[in-house]
Amino acid sequence: MAETGQKLANGLTRIDFATDPSRYRHWKLSVDGKVATLVLDVDERGGLFEGYDLKLNSYDLGVDIELADAFERIRFEHPEVRVVQLRSGKPRVFCAGANIRMLAGASHTHKVNFCKFTNETRNAIEDASAASGLRTICVINGTAAGGGYELALATDHIILVDDGSSSVSLPEVPLLAVLPGTGGLTRITDKRKVRRDRADFFCTTEEGIKGRRAVEWRLVDEVTPNSQLEAVIAARSREFIDGASQPEDGSGPGAHGISLPPLERNISSDHREYDYVSVAFNRAARIATITLRGPDMPCPESAEEMVSQGASLWSLQIARELDDAILDIRLNELDVAVIVFKSEGDLRTVLDHDLVLARHGRHWLAREIRLKWKRVLKRIDLTSRSLVALVEPGSCFAGTLAEIVFAADRSYMLIGRHDGDNRPPAGIMLGDINLSGALAMGNGLDRLSTRFLGEPAVRDKARQAVGEVLDAKAAEALGLITFALDDIDWEDEIRLFLEERASFSPDSLTGLEASLRFGGPETMETKIFARLSAWQNWIFQRPNATGETGALSRYGSGRKPEFDTKRV
Amino acid sequence: MAETGQKLANGLTRIDFATDPSRYRHWKLSVDGKVATLVLDVDERGGLFEGYDLKLNSYDLGVDIELADAFERIRFEHPEVRVVQLRSGKPRVFCAGANIRMLAGASHTHKVNFCKFTNETRNAIEDASAASGLRTICVINGTAAGGGYELALATDHIILVDDGSSSVSLPEVPLLAVLPGTGGLTRITDKRKVRRDRADFFCTTEEGIKGRRAVEWRLVDEVTPNSQLEAVIAARSREFIDGASQPEDGSGPGAHGISLPPLERNISSDHREYDYVSVAFNRAARIATITLRGPDMPCPESAEEMVSQGASLWSLQIARELDDAILDIRLNELDVAVIVFKSEGDLRTVLDHDLVLARHGRHWLAREIRLKWKRVLKRIDLTSRSLVALVEPGSCFAGTLAEIVFAADRSYMLIGRHDGDNRPPAGIMLGDINLSGALAMGNGLDRLSTRFLGEPAVRDKARQAVGEVLDAKAAEALGLITFALDDIDWEDEIRLFLEERASFSPDSLTGLEASLRFGGPETMETKIFARLSAWQNWIFQRPNATGETGALSRYGSGRKPEFDTKRV
Repeated sequence: MAETGQKLANGLTRIDFATDPSRYRHWKLSVDGKVATLVLDVDERGGLFEGYDLKLNSYDLGVDIELADAFERIRFEHPEVRVVQLRSGKPRVFCAGANIRMLAGASHTHKVNFCKFTNETRNAIEDASAASGLRTICVINGTAAGGGYELALATDHIILVDDGSSSVSLPEVPLLAVLPGTGGLTRITDKRKVRRDRADFFCTTEEGIKGRRAVEWRLVDEVTPNSQLEAVIAARSREFIDGASQPEDGSGPGAHGISLPPLERNISSDHREYDYVSVAFNRAARIATITLRGPDMPCPESAEEMVSQGASLWSLQIARELDDAILDIRLNELDVAVIVFKSEGDLRTVLDHDLVLARHGRHWLAREIRLKWKRVLKRIDLTSRSLVALVEPGSCFAGTLAEIVFAADRSYMLIGRHDGDNRPPAGIMLGDINLSGALAMGNGLDRLSTRFLGEPAVRDKARQAVGEVLDAKAAEALGLITFALDDIDWEDEIRLFLEERASFSPDSLTGLEASLRFGGPETMETKIFARLSAWQNWIFQRPNATGETGALSRYGSGRKPEFDTKRV
Repeated sequence: MAETGQKLANGLTRIDFATDPSRYRHWKLSVDGKVATLVLDVDERGGLFEGYDLKLNSYDLGVDIELADAFERIRFEHPEVRVVQLRSGKPRVFCAGANIRMLAGASHTHKVNFCKFTNETRNAIEDASAASGLRTICVINGTAAGGGYELALATDHIILVDDGSSSVSLPEVPLLAVLPGTGGLTRITDKRKVRRDRADFFCTTEEGIKGRRAVEWRLVDEVTPNSQLEAVIAARSREFIDGASQPEDGSGPGAHGISLPPLERNISSDHREYDYVSVAFNRAARIATITLRGPDMPCPESAEEMVSQGASLWSLQIARELDDAILDIRLNELDVAVIVFKSEGDLRTVLDHDLVLARHGRHWLAREIRLKWKRVLKRIDLTSRSLVALVEPGSCFAGTLAEIVFAADRSYMLIGRHDGDNRPPAGIMLGDINLSGALAMGNGLDRLSTRFLGEPAVRDKARQAVGEVLDAKAAEALGLITFALDDIDWEDEIRLFLEERASFSPDSLTGLEASLRFGGPETMETKIFARLSAWQNWIFQRPNATGETGALSRYGSGRKPEFDTKRV
């Protein structure tokens, strides 16, 4: 499989993650009281790349970008919503899964990034249910195959129409010689808890399973004849709404969401400028430097003020900007070896903004902003680039922003000042947020707990330092940074590190970092990205799938694939 | 990388896992009271394959086969041993890790199988410590690099000589563009609990880390000058011996082990015949059928009789035979798509033999036999072939042997009789062993718990059926088998399943089965085989490692590797 990607269908050269409902081509979002409905009605000609049609509600990254956006908007713009119904706008098909011609034509890099993003989107759907009480119902009328069924698996309740033909299936192994779903298997075993031998049968049966058996095998939650479908959907929605505890988070009757306007971005060849985030590319050195700027606004004094600042509130705006910047690098800047994180601003002001969210912790908007940060930080954890944080005078790695230092593979902090710089020496400041679990990694532990798995006493010391300005020596003593360097060594050490990193094999770094970042327990979420994605990355590379005679390459050609029969 | 393997250096065409200390070429095993010493002194010219020398105590599969054998023998032949010291017989080097030329020349299949076996060996070392109280001390004088350090990581206590040059290192990323250790990273993060940024530095620093810093970073347990080395080793050994609880398991003073004689094997082109295990190959259909035979001997009446039967005791002998048969298929029969498990014998007699082990559960030999079974069953769980159990009249899947049915990806059981067969209908019989956790999978759960993750009530029902003969209908109702078929459907259904399985892409089946077999929790052990091995399989395939210009291919050529710089 060539690494050369296909051309984008929109004529541009960059994949853009910014969208809004007025621009959706594949999903229709409507809100009626406490119920939102997302209808999947894929525009066949609306593929992200040239060269394929999105038939039968099959999807590509562009479809998933809209889905991810829709869930973000429901959470921020419609806090009153309690139930989301996912439905198909096409007769006799719910979703045929990831588009096969797209997969066959995509570079290995794109395939892996596509799978990662779709899994992040599905995890966000589950997070919305678990953390925001946004229950999801999937209505399957017709075929839900492969990634289509995987989308259903991400919801809380799957209703399958019992019409003799509607079915769920994971036909990838028989049809395409790739692993089903890229996350689906973990949800089959760990979420739906399907018996493993039944799962084996299900995943090797092209036509899938329908009717009562789908319920008995725990693949769906209920079946219903078409005639009762609408009544059943309404009843389940009502049960979810009635079952929810009365919200005391400001999202009850009369609540108003905030609107998420497009991010202002200034994009030039080597720079991306947002309000609080800058990205500078040094393409020769294969480095992207992301600079995060602290708040330039006073903290909101009340919940009402927080809502009225809305998307322009620093905590939320910078999270959205950072998310966009990370996705841009992941998908569009494949040659970047290292992401360097810097920051500029005032430590205490950053912590003050954290404290506002804490003070209004029961308010829906404060909750959603922290959950957004949690997702953005997880996205960084899963970004397959070397991550380094540089803590220098003038930086503001405090509280939430300090998590970036702990998410980095390494961090360097300057002792004292740079020659000729009058600013006070660099500091790091911990907040309760770093130790509360509110920004936990996918493994369920906060980053400091993961960091100090073997030294819980060190974590306890860190707790005692909350709110203090920690200089390089103090931060090093507390184990919060990797290396403290003085001005004499700084430039050479950093340069050598960056050069060395860029000289290593990108693949071995991907495997190394994915392993070292996730010590300790595994959760369904980390299993999806570890066990599942790693296998999928491997299989995508194998000639049996993507070689000239492989199943993915030959799909639809009328020619049977030819396999190397050796088991590995 | 060509899939064609190198030629075996011994002139044979099959890798043989049978060995004993008199035939070791690389390890020297000596026992002195409660202390066993294993000295690694690799015979450079003793490589398993042609084409490389095992310099600097580097190893290949042949070296690891001896190590695995040595630990088996210590457990069975020297139950009085409490401490094993692992040392080098060469000056200034402990172990340089997996031989690079061997890796560069090996087929992808062999590399993956090599990594899997070495991890199983290291897990067995840890199991000996955790379950048998056999504490291990690793003495590093000189270099412990890559897999050499990984071997150290598998021990309980690592002593590093503080001589200014002895060091531990994982130089794979800088040198070879592959993942360190193939299991080492998980032990770094989850066993040694090294801080992740320090681990990042350590794993990207070719020369490794020595002296005090190795202790501070939790990479080793202590450093000692050469002058005090022997005293320190003796002191640690003494502490481990004194710290152990007094054994009440018959392994105290005056205990005698049993000897493990070579397995009698009759090997012909399409058959392997052991006393209690037969393997028949249908190469056209790519099937290996393993038939397990029940006991043909009375149960031992006492612990003394159990010891005097020793290696010829059915429970132990069949476990050793099955282990050998599985390894033979894994390494030598790469084209086998499906392993079919059958059995022949009497259900109650099998269960009686289980009960003997339970009755003498505190005796060291009964304990070791059950632990051996636990390891053999785990090896089956990790075997990347489709596994199916056929339960027919005359079979004896009871107790320990019933675990094979639960380890299979699918099982089929005959309802009633085959036409013209007078034997009683097939039965399955559960024993306490199936529900006690004694044969737990790598994920820490027994196979029935993993099977019924979503239906714990079904597992409780199974508990009530212990000791009953369960016919096909009963076994199906209890969820113990996948499908119950009558004689009319039997032959066609099985044939279709086997044909279909052989028609699928081997790679996608490997990923599918590895995912579906391990629902539920992850442990350090399952992380090693999932997260770690999957990444390693992937990286071994990448051109940056094994392509013509890759680092592994170019190592030692004087030419620098050339990398595709895209991050995936």
